Amino acid sequence: MKSKTEYLKFNTEKKIDIIRITEKAQNVIDSSGIKEGLVLVNPMHITAAVIVNDDEEGLKRDYIRILQKLVPYKDIYEHNVGEDNAAAHIWRQMMGHQVVMAITNGKLDLGTWEQIFYYEFDGMRQKRVLVKIIGE
Amino acid sequence: MKSKTEYLKFNTEKKIDIIRITEKAQNVIDSSGIKEGLVLVNPMHITAAVIVNDDEEGLKRDYIRILQKLVPYKDIYEHNVGEDNAAAHIWRQMMGHQVVMAITNGKLDLGTWEQIFYYEFDGMRQKRVLVKIIGE
Amino acid sequence: MKSKTEYLKFNTEKKIDIIRITEKAQNVIDSSGIKEGLVLVNPMHITAAVIVNDDEEGLKRDYIRILQKLVPYKDIYEHNVGEDNAAAHIWRQMMGHQVVMAITNGKLDLGTWEQIFYYEFDGMRQKRVLVKIIGE
Repeated sequence: MKSKTEYLKFNTEKKIDIIRITEKAQNVIDSSGIKEGLVLVNPMHITAAVIVNDDEEGLKRDYIRILQKLVPYKDIYEHNVGEDNAAAHIWRQMMGHQVVMAITNGKLDLGTWEQIFYYEFDGMRQKRVLVKIIGE
Repeated sequence: MKSKTEYLKFNTEKKIDIIRITEKAQNVIDSSGIKEGLVLVNPMHITAAVIVNDDEEGLKRDYIRILQKLVPYKDIYEHNVGEDNAAAHIWRQMMGHQVVMAITNGKLDLGTWEQIFYYEFDGMRQKRVLVKIIGE
Repeated sequence: MKSKTEYLKFNTEKKIDIIRITEKAQNVIDSSGIKEGLVLVNPMHITAAVIVNDDEEGLKRDYIRILQKLVPYKDIYEHNVGEDNAAAHIWRQMMGHQVVMAITNGKLDLGTWEQIFYYEFDGMRQKRVLVKIIGE
């Protein structure tokens, strides 16, 4: 068995931002030499999510608009004493906050439209995403 | 370490449909010969979800009704230019879109009521679900 | 490759309750001797969730309040024939019901604020959470 650990770093310009990270995850797989295995892509901060979905700008805006409708960012939350990011904590759970993907023949085993994204809901400071691979 | 990769194929008769796949996942485990490990069950299409919950018909209708209430399928979405499936993309995130399950003594290590389901939200065409196992 | 399987047991005093289990998961890792790998933490009951988020009391109340707002516990559900826990089944999906975490140098590889929690939505009876580790 082989394993590989890497920490991707992000600092978004906007509080709410979306970054495609499929290629970054593949780079870690390439450097690991692992051909068959699983890769966990997990944000190490609890106001962000890593998800797999479509790389289409309208849909990305739909996600944020729906989250805003269901759980308004600027609202009254008990967590928001000295904080203003309670909704970001909740959004990341509603989006499914992490993914595990398969590695087959050294490549992310993706469907045609599957792309991996980092959804930042409380950005403008340094954040990390853990990429952990095990396999052979 | 051993690994096994298989692609389950589905083509539902309805746009929104639910298929129990516990047995299909177990079949892949059986064919792998892996006794201890993890199995990822991941839809390769981004308008579907693989979840673990109860095999009870009333509850399945409750899920769809709640999703329709919170994120109506027929509504105005920016993604729906030449598409009509924006809500399906959002539903699959809200349901948690993939599962990783344990294999113990060659069997899916399930609680009494845990069953694995494929929730299709934009069906009537061929779709794939990836089953990836690693273990020994 | 090594593996380890353990079942954590819970019996909450309240129907809806939240228990921090980071330390329990680390104990299983310690006993496994595994230094690099993945750990699945999965509730074996389908009205509970295992999530990673902040250990802050206000936020925990915010989660429950938002879930109550979006999917009221006492409402009309088709599942609630002889049951009263349909909302609990739905809540656990909306929260993301399981986590896979990385083990690096024998420790849970956590960000500063990441803690693992068991969210019970239909408690006051014995429940189990599966901890499955694979690695080396």
